[in-house]
Amino acid sequence: MIGTQSIRFLHPPYLISGSSIVGDKEGDGPLGEYFDVVEQDPMCGASTWEEAESKFQQRAAELAIEKAGLKNQDIRYIVAGDLLGQMIATSFGISSLQIPLFGVYGACSTMGESMAIAAMLVEGGYAKHVLALTSSHFASAERQFRFPSSYGNQRPFASTWTVTGSGAVVLAAEDALSEESKKNGIRVREITTGKITDYGIKDSMNMGACMAPGACDVIYSHLKDNEREPSYYDRIVTGDLGVIGKKILIEMLQAKGYDISKNHMDCGMAIYASDEQKTQAGGSGCGCAAVTLTAYIVKKLQSGEWSRVLFVPTGALLSQISFNEGNTVPGIAHGVVLERDADTQNGGDRA
Amino acid sequence: MIGTQSIRFLHPPYLISGSSIVGDKEGDGPLGEYFDVVEQDPMCGASTWEEAESKFQQRAAELAIEKAGLKNQDIRYIVAGDLLGQMIATSFGISSLQIPLFGVYGACSTMGESMAIAAMLVEGGYAKHVLALTSSHFASAERQFRFPSSYGNQRPFASTWTVTGSGAVVLAAEDALSEESKKNGIRVREITTGKITDYGIKDSMNMGACMAPGACDVIYSHLKDNEREPSYYDRIVTGDLGVIGKKILIEMLQAKGYDISKNHMDCGMAIYASDEQKTQAGGSGCGCAAVTLTAYIVKKLQSGEWSRVLFVPTGALLSQISFNEGNTVPGIAHGVVLERDADTQNGGDRA
Repeated sequence: MIGTQSIRFLHPPYLISGSSIVGDKEGDGPLGEYFDVVEQDPMCGASTWEEAESKFQQRAAELAIEKAGLKNQDIRYIVAGDLLGQMIATSFGISSLQIPLFGVYGACSTMGESMAIAAMLVEGGYAKHVLALTSSHFASAERQFRFPSSYGNQRPFASTWTVTGSGAVVLAAEDALSEESKKNGIRVREITTGKITDYGIKDSMNMGACMAPGACDVIYSHLKDNEREPSYYDRIVTGDLGVIGKKILIEMLQAKGYDISKNHMDCGMAIYASDEQKTQAGGSGCGCAAVTLTAYIVKKLQSGEWSRVLFVPTGALLSQISFNEGNTVPGIAHGVVLERDADTQNGGDRA
Repeated sequence: MIGTQSIRFLHPPYLISGSSIVGDKEGDGPLGEYFDVVEQDPMCGASTWEEAESKFQQRAAELAIEKAGLKNQDIRYIVAGDLLGQMIATSFGISSLQIPLFGVYGACSTMGESMAIAAMLVEGGYAKHVLALTSSHFASAERQFRFPSSYGNQRPFASTWTVTGSGAVVLAAEDALSEESKKNGIRVREITTGKITDYGIKDSMNMGACMAPGACDVIYSHLKDNEREPSYYDRIVTGDLGVIGKKILIEMLQAKGYDISKNHMDCGMAIYASDEQKTQAGGSGCGCAAVTLTAYIVKKLQSGEWSRVLFVPTGALLSQISFNEGNTVPGIAHGVVLERDADTQNGGDRA
């Protein structure tokens, strides 16, 4: 335990595989060439949008397990969630795998939350392999949170476009791997767990502004807890703040004495060419951070171009009901430090 | 790790406090005298049902922390969830505590899931104290899953009545306690994590039947993994199967060679006097198992009347959308073994 919100692992788990499956719009975007699968059928062969999202999730899970060279029964737990009410994309997505499940919900921060829990279950000695997984789908999210797509509503500039896609990673225990396979491995070195942060913002069409304070809290706590400067990281990566949220985050951290403007990256701004693709402030959804991690960030770490990343998926806590009842939109974020060839010589600190 | 789904803790965490706050209907039921607080105002002073549920949750959390003799900042993590879409009861219930949060969703099995994760975080060395928490509210659940209460719909016999209430427990690490305070302590000795179990049942008004296969899977795996007979436990406690689900569960386990008929208890059947209170098959909701645990089961263990309980909250995985799209209602359950004066002499088995 480090400081008030962070954990540094003594035996950091390895991220041994990642998978990404996205829709055609994501495939047409700047990261198109990086994804494992670009599915041209947004229904993924299903008869409803929700079932389609489930299929994306199932295929991401199966692919990550296959790429890790494992079978379903080698995975002790799945830690997974999605954006839909009562997490139905997950309930119907992965039941066929028949793996014990911890369902988690952190809105669009879910990939950070699921990886943080998965890392503790692996390092704590409770599992050799855990799958962390999340998904989102443009059409199921529109139905859940906004207007029927067929209304053709105008989208305000601050709004974001929910990513259709699912990303999964397999985390493995140190002692489950051969020395050879650990070489140049990517490890989950630390985590910093978020608190609910509510600045009283009520505009659900400006989720970047709602989530920026949550991201600020986690990044600030992480740097403080670990006594680090932002430059320690090749990238500090937020989930889906978009252009407006990014600006707010950078200003908030500047006011607290940290300048992340030089190495900040937002998955929501990376995944679409917003002007041409008309995605307004950027991409969003659980799937946004998940597929940008597995398709792009992990490859940058594997190639050695980057050696350390602070990955901070960001979530906006709202529902149709909370919005209609006039509530605010609080935010939460979860930080995960990924390192190549993690230097564990300086020891860990648990309990 | 034991078998395919169970963990036996080497240093079982202590359950050092529990809290229960319920509505008046629960206060009028057979367990009325056991609850910490019976709130006569179903709105709990709030202006919406959802906000009322948040208030129940906040009060349960604060009471559990107070009863443990701790302050908010002593709690390293909250692991919490509820039944509402995007878990808004939790998002708005506990934000004022400013404690790092892992949001979890397992429908009505959530108390089992949150305690299982909390126990691993404590025993893994990642926290001295973790709060596990969940809630449900009759009126917010009716709005979410059924009909507006004011319609006055007839309720089929197989339907259940969602418990208004919230229960919270604080789990503590062995080394966070004095020898004195460990005496006669209650410990989380083992967990068994559930898989999604789908028998193709589509009747959301018969959730007992939907959840019984999930409960059966966890209880069977638990007994198999640990090579035990049901008689090892003073009680095997399910969350909210109700009269129909209970009958199915007992028959399913009998067919697999286990007879739990003598020591099975269902929280949904214990919390209401169904005939007089017109709750049909029994109580349900995340809060049902949570408050029955904290108010009743924990006291039976504390008094020494019982020494071992297998606590198995049971969840039905559905949403308005999945139901309206004609989907099945899969089930999931999470098992937690609570022991008084836990005999840890026979060792644990991690990894």
